[in-house]
Amino acid sequence: MTRSLLILNGPNLNMLGTRQPEVYGGTTLAQIEDACAKFASSFGISVSFEQSNHEGTLVDIIQASKGVHDGIVFNAGAYTHTSLALHDAIASVEIPTIELHLSNVHAREPFRHHSYLAPVSIGLICGFGANGYTLAMTAMHQHLEGGV
Amino acid sequence: MTRSLLILNGPNLNMLGTRQPEVYGGTTLAQIEDACAKFASSFGISVSFEQSNHEGTLVDIIQASKGVHDGIVFNAGAYTHTSLALHDAIASVEIPTIELHLSNVHAREPFRHHSYLAPVSIGLICGFGANGYTLAMTAMHQHLEGGV
Amino acid sequence: MTRSLLILNGPNLNMLGTRQPEVYGGTTLAQIEDACAKFASSFGISVSFEQSNHEGTLVDIIQASKGVHDGIVFNAGAYTHTSLALHDAIASVEIPTIELHLSNVHAREPFRHHSYLAPVSIGLICGFGANGYTLAMTAMHQHLEGGV
Amino acid sequence: MTRSLLILNGPNLNMLGTRQPEVYGGTTLAQIEDACAKFASSFGISVSFEQSNHEGTLVDIIQASKGVHDGIVFNAGAYTHTSLALHDAIASVEIPTIELHLSNVHAREPFRHHSYLAPVSIGLICGFGANGYTLAMTAMHQHLEGGV
Amino acid sequence: MTRSLLILNGPNLNMLGTRQPEVYGGTTLAQIEDACAKFASSFGISVSFEQSNHEGTLVDIIQASKGVHDGIVFNAGAYTHTSLALHDAIASVEIPTIELHLSNVHAREPFRHHSYLAPVSIGLICGFGANGYTLAMTAMHQHLEGGV
Amino acid sequence: MTRSLLILNGPNLNMLGTRQPEVYGGTTLAQIEDACAKFASSFGISVSFEQSNHEGTLVDIIQASKGVHDGIVFNAGAYTHTSLALHDAIASVEIPTIELHLSNVHAREPFRHHSYLAPVSIGLICGFGANGYTLAMTAMHQHLEGGV
Amino acid sequence: MTRSLLILNGPNLNMLGTRQPEVYGGTTLAQIEDACAKFASSFGISVSFEQSNHEGTLVDIIQASKGVHDGIVFNAGAYTHTSLALHDAIASVEIPTIELHLSNVHAREPFRHHSYLAPVSIGLICGFGANGYTLAMTAMHQHLEGGV
Amino acid sequence: MTRSLLILNGPNLNMLGTRQPEVYGGTTLAQIEDACAKFASSFGISVSFEQSNHEGTLVDIIQASKGVHDGIVFNAGAYTHTSLALHDAIASVEIPTIELHLSNVHAREPFRHHSYLAPVSIGLICGFGANGYTLAMTAMHQHLEGGV
Amino acid sequence: MTRSLLILNGPNLNMLGTRQPEVYGGTTLAQIEDACAKFASSFGISVSFEQSNHEGTLVDIIQASKGVHDGIVFNAGAYTHTSLALHDAIASVEIPTIELHLSNVHAREPFRHHSYLAPVSIGLICGFGANGYTLAMTAMHQHLEGGV
Amino acid sequence: MTRSLLILNGPNLNMLGTRQPEVYGGTTLAQIEDACAKFASSFGISVSFEQSNHEGTLVDIIQASKGVHDGIVFNAGAYTHTSLALHDAIASVEIPTIELHLSNVHAREPFRHHSYLAPVSIGLICGFGANGYTLAMTAMHQHLEGGV
Amino acid sequence: MTRSLLILNGPNLNMLGTRQPEVYGGTTLAQIEDACAKFASSFGISVSFEQSNHEGTLVDIIQASKGVHDGIVFNAGAYTHTSLALHDAIASVEIPTIELHLSNVHAREPFRHHSYLAPVSIGLICGFGANGYTLAMTAMHQHLEGGV
Amino acid sequence: MTRSLLILNGPNLNMLGTRQPEVYGGTTLAQIEDACAKFASSFGISVSFEQSNHEGTLVDIIQASKGVHDGIVFNAGAYTHTSLALHDAIASVEIPTIELHLSNVHAREPFRHHSYLAPVSIGLICGFGANGYTLAMTAMHQHLEGGV
Repeated sequence: MTRSLLILNGPNLNMLGTRQPEVYGGTTLAQIEDACAKFASSFGISVSFEQSNHEGTLVDIIQASKGVHDGIVFNAGAYTHTSLALHDAIASVEIPTIELHLSNVHAREPFRHHSYLAPVSIGLICGFGANGYTLAMTAMHQHLEGGV
Repeated sequence: MTRSLLILNGPNLNMLGTRQPEVYGGTTLAQIEDACAKFASSFGISVSFEQSNHEGTLVDIIQASKGVHDGIVFNAGAYTHTSLALHDAIASVEIPTIELHLSNVHAREPFRHHSYLAPVSIGLICGFGANGYTLAMTAMHQHLEGGV
Repeated sequence: MTRSLLILNGPNLNMLGTRQPEVYGGTTLAQIEDACAKFASSFGISVSFEQSNHEGTLVDIIQASKGVHDGIVFNAGAYTHTSLALHDAIASVEIPTIELHLSNVHAREPFRHHSYLAPVSIGLICGFGANGYTLAMTAMHQHLEGGV
Repeated sequence: MTRSLLILNGPNLNMLGTRQPEVYGGTTLAQIEDACAKFASSFGISVSFEQSNHEGTLVDIIQASKGVHDGIVFNAGAYTHTSLALHDAIASVEIPTIELHLSNVHAREPFRHHSYLAPVSIGLICGFGANGYTLAMTAMHQHLEGGV
Repeated sequence: MTRSLLILNGPNLNMLGTRQPEVYGGTTLAQIEDACAKFASSFGISVSFEQSNHEGTLVDIIQASKGVHDGIVFNAGAYTHTSLALHDAIASVEIPTIELHLSNVHAREPFRHHSYLAPVSIGLICGFGANGYTLAMTAMHQHLEGGV
Repeated sequence: MTRSLLILNGPNLNMLGTRQPEVYGGTTLAQIEDACAKFASSFGISVSFEQSNHEGTLVDIIQASKGVHDGIVFNAGAYTHTSLALHDAIASVEIPTIELHLSNVHAREPFRHHSYLAPVSIGLICGFGANGYTLAMTAMHQHLEGGV
Repeated sequence: MTRSLLILNGPNLNMLGTRQPEVYGGTTLAQIEDACAKFASSFGISVSFEQSNHEGTLVDIIQASKGVHDGIVFNAGAYTHTSLALHDAIASVEIPTIELHLSNVHAREPFRHHSYLAPVSIGLICGFGANGYTLAMTAMHQHLEGGV
Repeated sequence: MTRSLLILNGPNLNMLGTRQPEVYGGTTLAQIEDACAKFASSFGISVSFEQSNHEGTLVDIIQASKGVHDGIVFNAGAYTHTSLALHDAIASVEIPTIELHLSNVHAREPFRHHSYLAPVSIGLICGFGANGYTLAMTAMHQHLEGGV
Repeated sequence: MTRSLLILNGPNLNMLGTRQPEVYGGTTLAQIEDACAKFASSFGISVSFEQSNHEGTLVDIIQASKGVHDGIVFNAGAYTHTSLALHDAIASVEIPTIELHLSNVHAREPFRHHSYLAPVSIGLICGFGANGYTLAMTAMHQHLEGGV
Repeated sequence: MTRSLLILNGPNLNMLGTRQPEVYGGTTLAQIEDACAKFASSFGISVSFEQSNHEGTLVDIIQASKGVHDGIVFNAGAYTHTSLALHDAIASVEIPTIELHLSNVHAREPFRHHSYLAPVSIGLICGFGANGYTLAMTAMHQHLEGGV
Repeated sequence: MTRSLLILNGPNLNMLGTRQPEVYGGTTLAQIEDACAKFASSFGISVSFEQSNHEGTLVDIIQASKGVHDGIVFNAGAYTHTSLALHDAIASVEIPTIELHLSNVHAREPFRHHSYLAPVSIGLICGFGANGYTLAMTAMHQHLEGGV
Repeated sequence: MTRSLLILNGPNLNMLGTRQPEVYGGTTLAQIEDACAKFASSFGISVSFEQSNHEGTLVDIIQASKGVHDGIVFNAGAYTHTSLALHDAIASVEIPTIELHLSNVHAREPFRHHSYLAPVSIGLICGFGANGYTLAMTAMHQHLEGGV
């Protein structure tokens, strides 16, 4: 059966390409999603995309992923650092989740160093800009294959 | 006049019965609400149910309770520990509120020990699983009667 | 066989009814114990009462409960927040214990927010004044029955 | 061209006039908005009003302000102290923003002393009740004129 | 009777216009005082000016204001963050006081985030440069009038 | 009616005169009590003495003072810094209490700087060795007379 | 030779009797100094009085006491909690010093719990209002006599 | 003259063998005391045993050891981490004391990492279960002999 | 010219495959290096390998990379969390460096959450076991190409 | 088969006998090793000795002990408090390890209270000077025998 | 043109030679100033001296140095650790300033480890007693020459 | 006899002149050592130079200095802030040591503010770049001469 991944983006990531390009780069979210879709087809896996600025909507989406998606690549943006509800949502669905950030959050302000998602994520990729999405897809694919 | 209680549940509580049953038990939210409804009728009080994963929607519901409900039994889930907005909402409507948790949050991770709701709640019940709802309804009934 | 509960009260709870009634209410400990005894008979369970201002005596009582009582409802008063010895005593006898407070301790001074008893208690009830004792007895009864 | 300001209010500010009047005063939000509209016309500027209890909706509104409004007067209520997502939203649109509070938050509970908005705001006005809105509009007007 | 305001400036504010203009602007204290005097006459109120680099002298001035001034607009500079004596002085005279800063201190170094003056001030205005003085005078005038 | 004071000493104060005389001096507790008795008679007041190494016994003694003593001079020794139960006991009897230490505890180890008794004491005397007892008796006498 | 004491008062203590009488009482500093002078003559000792709102002036006064006074009773007011310079001044003159406060500072705001003077004081008296001055003079007299 | 050691055990150690054997082992306190007595006779020293759950009783026992015992091996259990009174008691009798724990407390919960006894103990042995008692007796014997 | 990468491993990583395989997996370091070498040839880049348990040797290796390697993939193991010297070494050579961990360090003990390397690394990959090395090589390749 | 122990000493312990003898005693490391060798032969076990000032060398030695030694007595000196790499090395070889210190580190500077080795050690012995080595050998022997 | 240096001393440094000579040495401030004057003439630079116990006066002196002195050697004594006003004063005049202490403040009490002056000083010299002044003059001379 | 100084440099200081010249200047370590050698000959003292990136090697060098060198000028680089082993090494040899840094570490990142070397150093010089070495040599020479 074809594997299905969810690429989930949190608050303000719909602004990519216009928001502080010196921090986040000039690529738009649509361009990233196009690149991810092409990359997915090279693996023979299915990929879906969601973005929301609403913490509650992100919780809803994660809950609805149960039985639908095999893995989640999650760039939770600012909610990474403030949302225990997203932590609980990931724990409740038990779908493998990779935490993703465009910038190296551990090299930025201290309030971006703590992650509520880390304890419920299999791994973390940060600092590689738009490239991080395909890196995370590769990592998720290897995880699901049980590779190395 | 018949007293009216609101049983309000926050994020991820719609997942009850499927989410980490070793922590939260195997009873679903619908089963809990049925039990609460039966229990309420034994007191001769009216009971309503709401659940949302959205912090803002929970604020809206609390505001709308003013003049409608006489007491709130509130399991705010993860928002207990992160939402000052819910604290302010309860303070603004001045309806007696009981803080409820299924698990004994004070025996879990440190980030579940602090409650933004405690300063605006009359009391707290936690650790008794689904039974906590009817315990809280009893406590609210006694509070409204001014009993003992 | 008839179940046996111990209602155990710690320091200064013998002063109930005279001590700061605006915080703790006007009911005396004897009145509470009478109410508990009547409530217990409605469940067909046996109930015993102990109170001490001495941390060591409370440790002795808990140790002596092993094989005698099936559950402990414990209002440890100030020792809740300072006594690791009581934590160890409860852990050593492995009797289900409910932590109880008359006032909502989480809405009071910060030094009343930490509980040494929480990690060894099944649950917590606080803020309901004298009513808390019968709520805790109900919760313990349900716990021992394995209810919902 | 006529300048356009957005007066943006966060959670529970729709309850103004009924919510804890001893803290927040007896003026309703509608009355404040009327006063702001009149005050704006004296400057020859346009003014819009939005209020939401939802963090995500506030993020949406701020993003939609880009290219529409020249300045934002933002009373984020409780989200001031908990929302990194609003911080990121303001940073992403690069519209001058003034942080506003009705009460002097620095003289209240410690959890109201930290502001996630301060690092992305040009200034702060707090403690002047409903008058704060027109003070903030004056300050924004002067800022946009580059005055003194 | 004509109302009287005191515009009180603390350490290093006599250097305005020459001191770090990229932080504090290029306007001198004399220019600010001129603007305040003109602004005061438009309200029909009297205004006095004092500046000192000495914590003790500022305490003396505040004490001497009792029975003389109806309100104080106080830019205490660095003493805001280190002087409990000024806090006590304001408390002792019970004259309404507004805390003022040229820069947005909450967006600067952490040691500028705590204010000893906040608990004894009616409100705070910061970040608006020299314009802050007339904003504060407006706020004080409205406060004394009791207006919305 | 003759006023009655209780001079209450906590753990290890029965060792006075032999315990670390370089810190606590060479006077024994019996000598101090003799001096206090003589000093009391000069005021025409009655004085009683109690000492215990047991926290619970000290709680018992304080509770038993209600309606018997008009004031308590309390050197709680190490329990000053660890006993919330003594704090609660003093609060429950509402007898004026003076906190006393032989050494200047604020100039010693940091764990002797915090006092659970301070919030329920009218005042504190420390650092004057055995002389502190008669100083405290004088202070209590003046307090009860409402002097100066 | 007649012993000489200095009664030294810090910032805002010149406001005594008018400043927050519910905290500090209604006695003026002049009345306290009169009472001290009379009390001193009963011991046959000389007493001088100084008060300043200036930290530097207080340092000057303490330095000038060397070789002049045998003991200092020092109510440093707010500087107790913020002035390391006064700590160093007392250490430099090596005159026995008693720390004095009118109110029980350890029962007030946390920022009044730390004292820079404690490590260089022989003892502390607080909470007894104006009576504290004569208590401190007694304590100093006993200290200089080497009493009990 | 024969040397005399006191083996002193604190709260809950009378439960040894039944209390959480996976943490504390299956040996009872009586078995340990027997082993200690035999071990002592091999050194030609006298050994006494005391156990109490009461902090105050432990203080009494330590005080009574003065002039009777030459060394104390002290397993203070939970009081290690909460009792400043025991710290003061050991300091007051100036008998060499070794701190002992059955489990490696530094590898357990953080609240077991701090010891009030360390500053007044010659050394610490922990983690070796019942064997720790004879190790401590050896260490004390060597200490008293001044060995190596 | 062919690009050259350094794969640098720190303390205990030579134990891979035998050390706690439940945490770090069963692949040996030699197997990982083989996989990396093959992967590198698919990119047409050169790759070198170094491992040391010595902080100083790792500093030496990093310094020697200047002018030799175009990028460093660095799994610094425990030194990540304790070595400021490695931070300074990377800063001094100004070679792009990716921080790598086999396990998700942010989901482990708190002392593994802080990284001295983050401020001088372009990005972080953790939690993907042996797969992390080729993910990091991909990320470095994209970084050097300036990709997306 | 003969059991083999490693006595491993860390930085500066080669200076024993000359380094601060008032803290560490006058016995040299060679004398301690001689005593240990004799003591080992009385048990019929083999003993080896290593000392290094280099953290990395200590890691190498621990790794090389795997399959060679049955237990390690480790005085890691200052690295106890700063080296996570040694913690990881011990965890990787899974050889029973006893933490040893000559002085009672918990009675010294706060930076000597935390141990990175405690979580991977079976027990701790400190404060007994050179005697600690044979105490630790006894404890290790008993541990390997599974004694008491 | 002749360069001009200001040697500025803060509180209690006028007591040098008499104040705690075991900490600060036996040289008086006048002797130091003489030595500095002679040393300055060997460089062909002019040197001025100021000392004050008043924080405000020190601010005044620093402000008055603008355009007069080319460098400041500043021993701010206790104000180093408490005065943000002096930090702001140095920042406002932009004269190169060297922070100086007689004793090694980083080896003394923790409250002497933090310096408000460090962020606005070019360098720090401490621990060399009176010699520190000429060392600082040399360092300032080299700094102004742009030497090495 | 000719005095002998050791100029000891720690990790990354061999990179001087190439490493971040905007922070550390453009002078190489060889140039600094040449300057030091010339400067030493003007005092008639002998000077040796050592540099290592290895903490353990630095410990070895310090130990080997005993009886060879009369003073150490030590720029420990990053190990200043993380190495307790170097602290212990200096304490063990009891050779006067001066702590040196090229940059003003107290004006940089917080993790460079704490020094493990300060408690065992006679003084500290930082912020003067390469000039600091000759300043430190002068200071050491004066220290050894007992000068002023």
